Formats: sequence, structure tokens, C-alpha cells
Amino acid sequence: MTSRTRIATETEREALYRDMERLHTSPLWRYTDVTRAEPQPRTAAHLWRWSDLRPRVLRMGDLVSVEEAERRVMVLSNPGLDGLGATGSLYAGIQLVLPGEVARAHRHTMAAIRFIMEGTGAFTAVEGEKTILHPGDFVTTPNWTWHNHGNESPDPVIWLDGLDIPLVRRTLDAGFQEYYPDLEQPLSKPDDLSQRQYSAGGLRPTWEVHLAAHTPLLNYSWEQSYATLSRLARETDGSPWDAIRLEYVNPYSGGPVLPTMASYIQLLRPGKHTSAHRHTGGTVYQVAQGTGWSVINGMRFDWAPKDVFVVPSWAYHEHANASEREDAVLFSYNDSPVLRALGLLREEAYLETDGHQPVGQVFGAEQRGGPVVTAGPG
Amino acid sequence: MTSRTRIATETEREALYRDMERLHTSPLWRYTDVTRAEPQPRTAAHLWRWSDLRPRVLRMGDLVSVEEAERRVMVLSNPGLDGLGATGSLYAGIQLVLPGEVARAHRHTMAAIRFIMEGTGAFTAVEGEKTILHPGDFVTTPNWTWHNHGNESPDPVIWLDGLDIPLVRRTLDAGFQEYYPDLEQPLSKPDDLSQRQYSAGGLRPTWEVHLAAHTPLLNYSWEQSYATLSRLARETDGSPWDAIRLEYVNPYSGGPVLPTMASYIQLLRPGKHTSAHRHTGGTVYQVAQGTGWSVINGMRFDWAPKDVFVVPSWAYHEHANASEREDAVLFSYNDSPVLRALGLLREEAYLETDGHQPVGQVFGAEQRGGPVVTAGPG
Amino acid sequence: MTSRTRIATETEREALYRDMERLHTSPLWRYTDVTRAEPQPRTAAHLWRWSDLRPRVLRMGDLVSVEEAERRVMVLSNPGLDGLGATGSLYAGIQLVLPGEVARAHRHTMAAIRFIMEGTGAFTAVEGEKTILHPGDFVTTPNWTWHNHGNESPDPVIWLDGLDIPLVRRTLDAGFQEYYPDLEQPLSKPDDLSQRQYSAGGLRPTWEVHLAAHTPLLNYSWEQSYATLSRLARETDGSPWDAIRLEYVNPYSGGPVLPTMASYIQLLRPGKHTSAHRHTGGTVYQVAQGTGWSVINGMRFDWAPKDVFVVPSWAYHEHANASEREDAVLFSYNDSPVLRALGLLREEAYLETDGHQPVGQVFGAEQRGGPVVTAGPG
Amino acid sequence: MTSRTRIATETEREALYRDMERLHTSPLWRYTDVTRAEPQPRTAAHLWRWSDLRPRVLRMGDLVSVEEAERRVMVLSNPGLDGLGATGSLYAGIQLVLPGEVARAHRHTMAAIRFIMEGTGAFTAVEGEKTILHPGDFVTTPNWTWHNHGNESPDPVIWLDGLDIPLVRRTLDAGFQEYYPDLEQPLSKPDDLSQRQYSAGGLRPTWEVHLAAHTPLLNYSWEQSYATLSRLARETDGSPWDAIRLEYVNPYSGGPVLPTMASYIQLLRPGKHTSAHRHTGGTVYQVAQGTGWSVINGMRFDWAPKDVFVVPSWAYHEHANASEREDAVLFSYNDSPVLRALGLLREEAYLETDGHQPVGQVFGAEQRGGPVVTAGPG
Repeated sequence: MTSRTRIATETEREALYRDMERLHTSPLWRYTDVTRAEPQPRTAAHLWRWSDLRPRVLRMGDLVSVEEAERRVMVLSNPGLDGLGATGSLYAGIQLVLPGEVARAHRHTMAAIRFIMEGTGAFTAVEGEKTILHPGDFVTTPNWTWHNHGNESPDPVIWLDGLDIPLVRRTLDAGFQEYYPDLEQPLSKPDDLSQRQYSAGGLRPTWEVHLAAHTPLLNYSWEQSYATLSRLARETDGSPWDAIRLEYVNPYSGGPVLPTMASYIQLLRPGKHTSAHRHTGGTVYQVAQGTGWSVINGMRFDWAPKDVFVVPSWAYHEHANASEREDAVLFSYNDSPVLRALGLLREEAYLETDGHQPVGQVFGAEQRGGPVVTAGPG
Repeated sequence: MTSRTRIATETEREALYRDMERLHTSPLWRYTDVTRAEPQPRTAAHLWRWSDLRPRVLRMGDLVSVEEAERRVMVLSNPGLDGLGATGSLYAGIQLVLPGEVARAHRHTMAAIRFIMEGTGAFTAVEGEKTILHPGDFVTTPNWTWHNHGNESPDPVIWLDGLDIPLVRRTLDAGFQEYYPDLEQPLSKPDDLSQRQYSAGGLRPTWEVHLAAHTPLLNYSWEQSYATLSRLARETDGSPWDAIRLEYVNPYSGGPVLPTMASYIQLLRPGKHTSAHRHTGGTVYQVAQGTGWSVINGMRFDWAPKDVFVVPSWAYHEHANASEREDAVLFSYNDSPVLRALGLLREEAYLETDGHQPVGQVFGAEQRGGPVVTAGPG
Repeated sequence: MTSRTRIATETEREALYRDMERLHTSPLWRYTDVTRAEPQPRTAAHLWRWSDLRPRVLRMGDLVSVEEAERRVMVLSNPGLDGLGATGSLYAGIQLVLPGEVARAHRHTMAAIRFIMEGTGAFTAVEGEKTILHPGDFVTTPNWTWHNHGNESPDPVIWLDGLDIPLVRRTLDAGFQEYYPDLEQPLSKPDDLSQRQYSAGGLRPTWEVHLAAHTPLLNYSWEQSYATLSRLARETDGSPWDAIRLEYVNPYSGGPVLPTMASYIQLLRPGKHTSAHRHTGGTVYQVAQGTGWSVINGMRFDWAPKDVFVVPSWAYHEHANASEREDAVLFSYNDSPVLRALGLLREEAYLETDGHQPVGQVFGAEQRGGPVVTAGPG
Repeated sequence: MTSRTRIATETEREALYRDMERLHTSPLWRYTDVTRAEPQPRTAAHLWRWSDLRPRVLRMGDLVSVEEAERRVMVLSNPGLDGLGATGSLYAGIQLVLPGEVARAHRHTMAAIRFIMEGTGAFTAVEGEKTILHPGDFVTTPNWTWHNHGNESPDPVIWLDGLDIPLVRRTLDAGFQEYYPDLEQPLSKPDDLSQRQYSAGGLRPTWEVHLAAHTPLLNYSWEQSYATLSRLARETDGSPWDAIRLEYVNPYSGGPVLPTMASYIQLLRPGKHTSAHRHTGGTVYQVAQGTGWSVINGMRFDWAPKDVFVVPSWAYHEHANASEREDAVLFSYNDSPVLRALGLLREEAYLETDGHQPVGQVFGAEQRGGPVVTAGPG
């Protein structure tokens, strides 16, 4: 059938390939990853220990001012990727705001979520509404909304930042940013108004018009999230794979808070060990409460409060609460809204050995960071 | 306000950054591109001349069998990117199917469009329906649909392939592929049935149920596309920036043929020179008919039939038909459905100097390829 | 359990009911139809013979001017309903426009469809676009669009009007109407532009913005409809219940042409006899071509060209083409978009006796009208 | 222009009209309401005083058992309509459930809402979930959901029923009903589970799949509704026309609880008098708390707790709280989801005399009912 193709020598072929390269072309069959049966992400499963990160975060505050840095953030750079990516599409960072600091107002097409880790009394202001942040609160700053932060308390405030930078700025080349003329935007609404408007489920103020694709609710308080988790945990097991997992949703759609990122808060009852599954979409987790471990593609990662870890796309994963007395709570975010919009969401349960993966390796001590370097007189 | 931050020495900072790196973390303020006001894509404006490519494409047919290559495709590798990308999210390739060849049946989550360039008598079969391909026909093979190609004619058949590989396989890590058990899939429908079902506008067969997000119409024939363009060109100017541009759409939604890619066919009347504009979303163009030039961010690219060129995201561009007698027709595809779904579509007209950019540079002869290398006795 | 309720005398109860009536209240349990298991519409199955109607329609033209009548229409009043209804939600009428007449421009929230019956050379203009009408053409005048008609030909023109008057004006009390300042609206577009823009399936002009819920295509020509039906009839049986039935659709949605009414054109091949089914939603049919009969809830209705008949909601119905050589074609419209939007669409096949109902009665000669009354010297 | 039409005598025309009538046809121009500029509903503005209704409702309990009545309901029959309609599309009734009674399980395509008026301790069960009812609670029983009621308390329980009977059963002929095999349906879920799942705004259980068009939240508690109204009333005026009005919404869509009916709870602060406006869609109001009056098309209706009143479609209306110390709260429901789906929603502010209508008439004492008839020994 293919009689027209001669049996060519490697020399001839290599000559052709070099010639093609000169014209900015290449032979498709030399890209071996194109025909893989399943995703084999460059994104690595990885865990950042808070006990490692915390001293460096504070050291950042010691050495770099917010004026210089604009946002004083420690990027969590996935070991399998270059620089800014926690996963192929998502970014994760730890932001520090010291007492008295203000992070100037700007807006950008990259959307952000925040999960508050430490400190009470910082605020964020988004589109004219201000909210005071408490540990465990979940806050969004959607695409192209003005936002600035500040810390009016006597203590450092630290939170986790999640953004869609790799997708929006790198792959889609759609990153725009601009500064507000002033350091802070004016506040046009009562503080936390959106909470009083939208945190009662099933009730919608009819005098509001909200046409945006993102949620109008600025701050999803830890108080309400944890109370809801606890109540539901008393009477349901939730999902075999995700336990009692709530999605933070847009009350106007029941869907994700942002078109590019979905965020979740999930509770593992004492002793709970979920079954393993995998799905497309890399996920960034942060431990909100408790201790336990997760098994990701057969490697065990032990976690403690405020640790951050990444489950790559299509990696099997399961979670366990190590305590027999206390709840464990995990916060997470991923790009499932993008996958759903594009018809690329897939999920598969791990069916062998009772749903639990054999553990081949433990994410190890040798990978840990040592004590923070304090070079110089500092 | 930031009194807590000491004036640190560069040495101290560098020590911290090295320490952070060891923990797979990095300081956000060192990524200078994060705060850019506008997209500055790595994707280059580039043109591949068909006169350069054609001999290499045929040489590929001479040296590599379809069995070895599976798909015998010359990838158009954007000079600003690595390997597979024509833009940050899209792939482009030139596929050659020689007489008697069959490209075996498979399916994958990367979606594809084809624009037929040369030869009549090849076929593509998608989900049990076969269509004979003619130059200028536009064909889709959506996400996870079985497809195989073959050439039952005495002549080589060549087409342009467009896929969403960089987005789906690289950024989203959602690439799956599998082979059909046999070389070809069985045909379960009359040839070109979908054309008779859906190519009459405003009429929908009520006995069909189509729940997929992609178009059910397999082949958008050149005959109908060009006839419609010509009719409309007689009575309207269309858009100042795009002239008479039709989108190939899903008759069930009026929207893009695929959730990840939109495709267009546009006519420039004799002498027509469009105004410049820019928008997010890199676009791959192919000249379907005629000669002319495009100005992309101030660089002029002259084009002739079957040349392929790329307009990067947010690059100003305008098109001109060089002929005073013949129509010019451009085919194109881009990722606008993704941008729209994620709220990232922006557009801006070029308002100076009558809407036309000053031309600073002409895409030059020195970049052309020479005659195809025919090393060795082969 | 109900010990609190005494055994009351009928006298006591009647006294209470009379007392309640005085207060504009009534006992629910006295409405026997409220608890019926299935719809028992007041709408009757009925057929109007064109041979009966035509002389009266022309007589209307003889006796009443269009200035007096504004629209010279013979309403088809369902025998089971009062006045304006052909079904519980829909209206049907026969409109006559004599040579030289103009029906003045107005708009209303009741939406209309037209199916052209006789005469070539009348026009309708909708929102600045004019179309010349030919028998078999299907035209819409959506909610609140300016429209006027006229007949520039030497012959009377007659068409079927379908509107949602009973639903919109009676049940929903949402009927608005206003007159255009002039007799005719100005024409702002080339004649039949929308046909050239939208009658090629799968191609959408990108310079048009169409935000309305209704179709932008003014005239669905008989030429294209019948050609498509004929082509498809050669290779598919379509649906067992509806044969080769096409819905006229909005090319921007693939859905109904209007939010309140769906319209269809269906072909019965020579000798074809469909299986019976029933669904919610009363339907008005008109015979576009051919002779045959329909069985509606066991009663046979014989039909000839231009006859109009009604199938009530939830009535079993089947259609037969009486000819062994010629196609029969039925036009129809119903309120299925309303039922779908409200979650009320149901369908059920008739499963006994091979899908065909036993015929208990033939819609009879005794119900026919006699010759038109020509009282007086006229 | 209309030379073909003779000047006809009335005799000739009348003869034609009689002849047409025999054929179940009629001349359109004789329906004078068809060309009205605005809606002139048959639905009357009307108020039913609870002081009038209550003794009759209890008398119903005295004389008619729930077994006989199936649902013991006093229908509020609009004076302008026949029998079952409160407005052209909606029904309203007062249901009484005596201690120990059970209203047997059934389901129907007519959807229902309930607003609890008196008594604590009755329950309703919908699709396997039971909820205990308290005054001010809002409950839905959507299209085709199994439901039964009962009263396990020692006191009578009374509520307002709202259904879409006139639209669904009469106009659309889409009414279906069936009985559950047993008196009560089995309870498959913990009581009030949906409240714990959905009454925290912005949090959605990810293990639930809810595909229906109606709300999954069974009981919108008065406690939460009133608390939310009160909180918002402290810092916003809400709408000039509706004051602090919340819509009960489906948490999966932010839209109406049912595809056919929207429901609201609104608070008028002490002394508040809203501006007048009108919109399409007849609305049924019930006073949840407080005293005041409404002006409807210039007629004043004074109201007290539990009174029910109707504002017809397109009637100007404004509401006033008569108290200077207490809040007034109004519950209401209307068919706006239908109007919105069909493109028929219109609204208009009353702009004269500061937005307040002159009051021409007071809904009067002479229309009141007298003491309930207690014929017989009872």
C-alpha cells in the first residue's frame, strides 16, 4: 500500500530533518509524547512543609519591603516545572503582609483566590468592598477587579495565594495588568456587605444586578464553612473519594467561584481514610486543620497544619486523617472549570486492593529544607 | 509604614533566594513578566511559504512511510516556541497522504480541524461517517471521536491540520489517546449524511439527537463556503477589520465548531485593505486563494496561495488583497472559544493613521528555505 | 384520625359553600377536573376544509376592506373553545391580502408565524427587511418586531397565520401593541438579506450581532425546505411517528424560531403511514402538499391541500399519505418551546395493534359547510 | 388601493359572519381586545381579609373530612375570573390540616409553593424528605415530586397554597396526577437534610447531583429569612419599588425555585412607603407580619396579618407600612419565570406625583363577609 515510499537511509532522513528545522518545521513522529495513552504530567507530586517555609517567609519580611516587592510572596515552584507553576495551569504562593503594610491597588486578568493561614486583622478590598480576614476564610479577587490589601493589626498576616498565571499569561497570552491611580481604592460599600447579602443560602437580594461570571461573595468565612462541614459530617459520609467536601460556589450559578478555578473545603472525620481515585486537573491542597497523610500515585506524603501539596492531573490520590479524635480539614483549588468547559474532565476510581494504593515510597526527610539561612549580621 | 523591614544587603537576599530555591520556592518579585501591562507573547509572527514547504512535504513522503509515522505530518514550529506550538495554545501541521495510504483509526482528547490544500479523492471518516475531501473543504475531528484517513485517488493529498495540543496535552495535562482495534472503523452512516442533514441553514432533522458540544456537520464544503462569501460580498462590506468573514459554526448552537477552537473563512474583495486591530488569542491563517499581504505589529508578510502565517495574541494585524481583479480568501483558526469561556476575550482597534500600521520591516528573503536537500544517492 | 370533623348534613355544607362564594372563595374538592390523571383538553380535534373556507375568505375580501379590518383574517375558532383559540395556547387564522392592499405597520408582543398558501408577489417587511412571499415559504414576525404586509401582484395572496394570543394576551396578560407612525416602515436592509446570511448551514457572518431570542432569518423558503426534505427522504425513514420532519430553527441556537412557538415541515413518502403517539402541546397542522388522512384519538380526518387541522394536547395521532406516487407534506406549529422551558413536555408511543389506532369515527360530511352565502345583490 | 372591496351592506356582512360561524370560524376584526395597546386583565385587584376567611376555614374543618376532600382547601377565586384562578395563570388557596390528619401522598405536574400561616407541628414530606413546618416557613413541592402532609401537633395548621393550575392545566393542557400506592411515602433521608446542605450560602455539597430545574432546598425557614431581611434593612434601602425584597432561589442557579413560579419575602421598615411601578405578571401577596396598605391602580387596600391580595398584571402598585415602630413583611409569588423565559417581562415606574398614585377608592367594608354561617345544631 505504501509503495511510493522508498526504504530510506537514516542519513537521508537526518538530512531532511535538518533542512526542515532550518524552516522552523519538524517531523511530528519525533514527538513521542504526542501519542501517549494517558497524561504523564511534568507536574510532580510534591509537598511543602510549613515548618520549612515559615522561617523563610518571615525572613522575606525581614529583608524585602512590600514597596520593593509590590506583593511579598514566596512562590511554590513545582519541581517538575519551570518557575511559576505549581501545576501546568496554576500558580501557588505564600503572601506575607506585615503590620502597617499596604499592598497597592491594582487589577489583572489573572484571577486569584486566597486562603487565610495566620493572623487576624489584615483586610482585603475588592471592587469597593473591604473584608477583615481571619484564619480559614476564603476570599476571591476575580479577573480585572481592583484589589488592595493591608494589615492594620499588630501581627504578621500570612495567606495562600492561588492564581491561574500559567494558563492565562503563558498559554493563552491574555495577561493584562494595571495600577489604580492611588495606593488604595475608595470603599463604596459597607464592609462585608456581600456576606450579609449572599451567605444565607437560597435568598437573593432582588435589587442587586450581578452580571459577572464570578461570585459576588467576597469572603466565605471559616466560621460558616466549618460549621456546615461539622453539621453535615454528623449525618453523611459524603463521597468515598472526597469525604465531606463542599465547593465554594457562586450563588448566582451554583458553579465555581471563578471561570478558571474551583475551590473546596473538605473534612475528614477522625480516622477517616478515603478511597483512591484520579481525575484530570492538577490540584493544590493546603491543610487547614489536623494531621494525616495523602498517597499520590503510590507515594505517601505526611501532612500537618498549613502544609501545601500538589496532586498532579490524572494521579491517583487518597487522604487519611491520622487522628482518632480530631477532624482534619483540607482546602484545595484546581482548574476543573476549564476542563469542564472544554469537555476534558475525566475521573476514574482506583478499584484494586479495597481502593487503597500500595505505598512504595514516603516523601522523605532528605528532601526537607534545613534551618533558614541567616547569612550576615541579620 | 514598613519599618519592620530592614535595609538588607544584596548578599543577605541572595543567600535567602538560594535557600528558598533548595525548597522549590522562589521570590515572586523576581519574575518580571508577571506585572506586564499587556501580553508579550513568546509566539512570533511568522510565515511559512508553501513554495518552501511543498518540496519538503513531498520528500517526507519519499522517505517515511505512513506506517512508521502513523500520521505523516510536518509540524510548523513557531520560532518563538519549543517544538509543537504554532501559538501558545495551538498546533499546526501539514499532512501528506499518498495514493493508497491509510492512516489508522484512533481517537484522542486533542481536537482537530483540517483545511484541505491539494488533491481530490482522499477521505476522512469520523464516527462512522465518511466524506470525500476537496480543496477548500473544512473538516473537524472533535475530542474523542474515532477517525481515520485514506487516499483512494491517484494523487497525493495534502491538508493543514490544526489541533489544541499545547493547551490540552501540555498546560491542562488532559491528553488521552487510543487506537481502534482495526485499521479502519466501520462505516455506519451513508457518506456525507451530515452534510445533507445540516448544510441547509435553519432546518434541523427532528429525529436526530445531538448532545455533544461539537458540531455534527463533518464537512463544510468549499463549494458552499465560497458561494456564500461571494454572494455576501456583493452587498456588504462586512467588518472593517475582518471584511467578509464567516465562522464555521455548530448548527446546534450558532457557536464554534469545537469547544477549544473556532475556525473562519474570509474574503477580501479585489483591492481590499482592512483596518488594523488586535485581540487576545493567537491565530493561524492559511491562504485559500489569491495573493496579498498582512501587516503584523508593523512587519509586512507577503503571501501567496497555501502559505501559512501566525498572528500572535494581542498583535495588531491587517490584511490586503494585492489583486485588483481576483478575490483573496483566508482560512483561519484560533482559541477564541477558550478565551470567551474564561472571560479573557479582548479586542482593540488601531486608531492612528487611518487604521493602518506603518510598516517597519518586511518578512524577508533571508529567512526563506533553499531547495530541498536530497542528500545521498536516494 | 379525623375525629374532629363531624358528620355534616348536606344542608350545612351547602350553607357554608354559599357563604364562601359571597367572599369569592370556593371549596377545592368541588373542582373535579383538578385531580384528573391526564389532560382532557377542551380543545377539540377538528379539521377545516379549504374547499369550505376558500369561498368565505374571498367573500371577506369582497365585503370588508383592509382599512376597516386592519388585518383581514378569518379566525379558525376551535369548536371546544371560545372564540380566538385554535388550541388552549395558540391561535390560527387565514389572512387575505388583495392586490394593491397594504396592511399597516405595527408591532405587538404576540409573536406570529406565517405559512404561505396561495399567490406570489405579496411581501412582508419585518424590522426593515422585506421578503417576497411564495407558496410554501415560512416567515416569522417575532415579539415586538415592526411588520407590515402588502400585495404588489395582480392576484390575491392568502396565508396561514399562527400566533400565541391565548397564552400571551389571555393567560399571561402580557399583550402590548403599537402602531408605526407611518403606514409602512422604512426598509433599512437589502431585500431578503437574512436569507443570504443564514440559509447556508453552519456558516455565520461574524460582523452581525444578534442578541434576540428569536431567529434572525426572515423567510425559510419552500424551495430550500422541500429540496432538503426530498434529499433526506431518499436515505432515511426519519422518525416512526413523524417521518421526515424538519424543525425550522434559529441558526443561533438550533432551537425554536420563537420562544413561544416551534414550527415544522414534514414529508410523508408515497404510501407512508406513521405510527401513533401522543405528547403534550396542541398542534395546528396545514397540508402543504398531497392528500391523506390523520387519525386523532380514534377519529379519522381526511385531508387535501391547504386543509387545516388541530391535534389537541395528549391526543394520539398518526398520519398517512393516501397516494402511492406523490409525496405528502405537512406544515405544523405548536407550543413545545413553552412546555420544554417549563418542564412539561411528555411523549408516549401508542404501542397496541402495531402502533395504529382503531378508527371509530370519520370526521364527517354533515359537519361541512355549504356554499358560501351570497345574501343580497352582491 | 382597495378597489376590489365593495361597499357592503351590514346585512351582507352579518350573513357572512353567520355563515362563517357555522364553520367554526370568525372575523378577527370583531375581537376588539386583540389590538389593545396594553394588558387589561380580567383579573381583578382584590383582597381577602383573614378575619373573614379564618372562621370559614375552620368551619370547613368542622364539616368536611380530609378523606372526602383529599386536600381541605378554600380556593381564593378572583372576582374577575372563573373559579380556580387567583390570576390568569396562578391559583391560591388556604389549606387546613387538623390534628392527626394526613393528606395522602400524590404527585402532579402542577407545581406548588406553601407559605405557613398558623400552627407549628405539621409536616410536609417531599421526595423522601420530611420537614416540620413553622409559621413563615416557605416550602415547595415541585412538578412531579411525591408529597404528603400531616399534622402531628395538637393544633390546627393552616397555610397558603400557590399553584400554576390555570397555566399548566387549562392553557397548556399539561396536567397529570397520580397517587402514591400508600397513604404516605417512605422517608429516605434525614429530616430537613436539604436545609443543612443548602442553607449556607455559597457552599455546595460536591457529593450531591441535582439535575432538576427546581430547587433542592425543601424548607426556607422563617428564622433565616427574617434574620437576613432584618440585617440588610439596617444598611440598605433596597429597591425604591420593592424595598428590602429577597427572592427565594434555587442554590444551583440563583434563579427561581420553580420554572413556573418565583417567590419573594420583602420587608417594609417602619413608616416605609414604596414608590409605585407596574410590571407584567399578576402577583399574589400575603401579609406575613405587620399592618399597612397597598394602592393598586388607584384603589387603596388596607391589610393586616395573613390577609391575601392580588395585584393584576400591569397594574400600578405601591406598599406602605402603617406602623412607625414595627416592620411589615409581605410574602408573594408570581409567574415571572414564565414571562422571562418567553421574553414578555416588562416593567415601568410610576413617575408622576413623586411616584405615588392618587387614591380614588378604598377597598370597602361593603365587600366584607359577615359572620360565618353556622346553620344547624353545630
